[in-house]
Amino acid sequence: MSGMASDMASPARLASTAFDLDTWAGVRLVQVEQALDRWVTSDVPQGLSHGAPAELVDAMRYAVLDGGKRLRPLLVLAAHEAVCDEDCVTCFAAALRAACAVELIHAYSLVHDDMPCMDNDVLRRGKPTVHVQFGEASALLAGDALQALAFELLTPQDGSVAPTVQANLCGLLARAAGSAGMAGGQAIDLASVGLPLTESQLREMHELKTGALLQASVVMGAHCGAPEPHALRALRAYGAAIGLAFQVVDDILDVTADSTTLGKTAGKDADNNKPTYVSLMGLQASQAYAQRLLAQARLALDDSGLPQTRTRALLALADMVVNRAN
Amino acid sequence: MSGMASDMASPARLASTAFDLDTWAGVRLVQVEQALDRWVTSDVPQGLSHGAPAELVDAMRYAVLDGGKRLRPLLVLAAHEAVCDEDCVTCFAAALRAACAVELIHAYSLVHDDMPCMDNDVLRRGKPTVHVQFGEASALLAGDALQALAFELLTPQDGSVAPTVQANLCGLLARAAGSAGMAGGQAIDLASVGLPLTESQLREMHELKTGALLQASVVMGAHCGAPEPHALRALRAYGAAIGLAFQVVDDILDVTADSTTLGKTAGKDADNNKPTYVSLMGLQASQAYAQRLLAQARLALDDSGLPQTRTRALLALADMVVNRAN
Repeated sequence: MSGMASDMASPARLASTAFDLDTWAGVRLVQVEQALDRWVTSDVPQGLSHGAPAELVDAMRYAVLDGGKRLRPLLVLAAHEAVCDEDCVTCFAAALRAACAVELIHAYSLVHDDMPCMDNDVLRRGKPTVHVQFGEASALLAGDALQALAFELLTPQDGSVAPTVQANLCGLLARAAGSAGMAGGQAIDLASVGLPLTESQLREMHELKTGALLQASVVMGAHCGAPEPHALRALRAYGAAIGLAFQVVDDILDVTADSTTLGKTAGKDADNNKPTYVSLMGLQASQAYAQRLLAQARLALDDSGLPQTRTRALLALADMVVNRAN
Repeated sequence: MSGMASDMASPARLASTAFDLDTWAGVRLVQVEQALDRWVTSDVPQGLSHGAPAELVDAMRYAVLDGGKRLRPLLVLAAHEAVCDEDCVTCFAAALRAACAVELIHAYSLVHDDMPCMDNDVLRRGKPTVHVQFGEASALLAGDALQALAFELLTPQDGSVAPTVQANLCGLLARAAGSAGMAGGQAIDLASVGLPLTESQLREMHELKTGALLQASVVMGAHCGAPEPHALRALRAYGAAIGLAFQVVDDILDVTADSTTLGKTAGKDADNNKPTYVSLMGLQASQAYAQRLLAQARLALDDSGLPQTRTRALLALADMVVNRAN
């Protein structure tokens, strides 16, 4: 008995029962920030953007560094840990690159989305948007270069990532970012302003616009290891649920939060007569829908066949997506 | 003697001595056009852009189909044939994808380059530019989606292209398109308007802006086969020479050709106070420089160790780049 009590109180036992998302994410956010700082640069000969003009790199760094929740990189790393030992050095090299690559795609989409011909937004993460700070032409080019850099990151020539994994990650990211993914969703969004959408049309738009890249983050993380087909299907379902939940909550926060908390202009969607979950379903039904999607995400993890100790970060991230304040 | 005469007159002998670029290119241009038409679509379930909104795909097709010299795809296919049997089905599948991918990157760069915040051009290949036809926001998104589609094309999931080749091609294209390639060159171009550049600064700008993607076309084509290191180095040198020659000739044509011949606004660079080879070196010296670069390209092919029968298309393309009328 005394042996059992001692075992339960041991640090190893505590580590396997207690899970603190902030602590988990804190370590990984430092790794992601350092990697982005190292890779989005022209300062060192080893830098990926070696030979790139300093002004362009300045705009790229401004768009990427010191900002955002880094939800997508955290999803990549959490999914990687779900299928693979977190101390596995080889897969982690791939996962860290994938984490940064999805963030570069996300960052470029924000730069272009904020431009005058799109949403014409001047504030992002509490700072002037890239085109306000650097001019429209530089914003356009910085976005373009960030997209290319994402694929550069996924294809290191130093042998650190297996070619099969490189090819897989490039394919997943390209599909999630392109016309049948994020860019396609933005095109539907653009064409939908002022139009009455049904819930299924709204869902389709968001599945492409935001969902595709969030889901790809999860799937790419898993592909850095060697996931079982069953686990991969479950993680894909998890990714779909939180991808949609993210947007439903975004729509909710657009009407319930203020600009300071959001770090961007609140009430913008309603002002722009954009269809949202709140305008379609009402606030209360949207909140209930977000909770149902969270339940779906949890269920997918339960069904994955992966040990609960491995999926705790994904579980906590799903909870954070739905219950966040900004 | 009679046997020898008969041998010299045989079709096989004729085929190995006579080379007609138009005939060679004609066949390949049909293959490229058909492939682009098949891949840049949302019409069929097998289409790469399945699920993409029709309006976005319309703008993407408008930007890509029925236009341009297709120099980059031809370079990819010619380089592939230089290192590999042209009837090799496996490599050709990769080379055709690479050919279309570089053209998608080129097409997206033109769409963004023509936008009001960049060159503000309304005419391209004799047609209204994409933002004139579809609006600025759609042009921005179509360009973004074309870049992603390029990487999607390079990563087919049907086993038709080996993962190592996929990874290699993605890496080469990403580096050529990004901040230390095409996008970087455009940023330097933008920052150079009205500034006095030295010849080396002008060359550096063009090596990135136009040269990187032209050179990558050659190198990517070679990587679809299994090139010898010596041949690869020679093809890289060939690509560098014609990449630069292309821009020198572009600058020459900007002052010597009219808009109808060019299919775009002539005299634009001079009007915009942009530094060009002609403004820096004068017309005659620019023409002599272009011929020197052509000689360098020829020399590289001679040095490649590749049989002359295999490098004839590359040779003819170099000649076309320098001696073209538009």
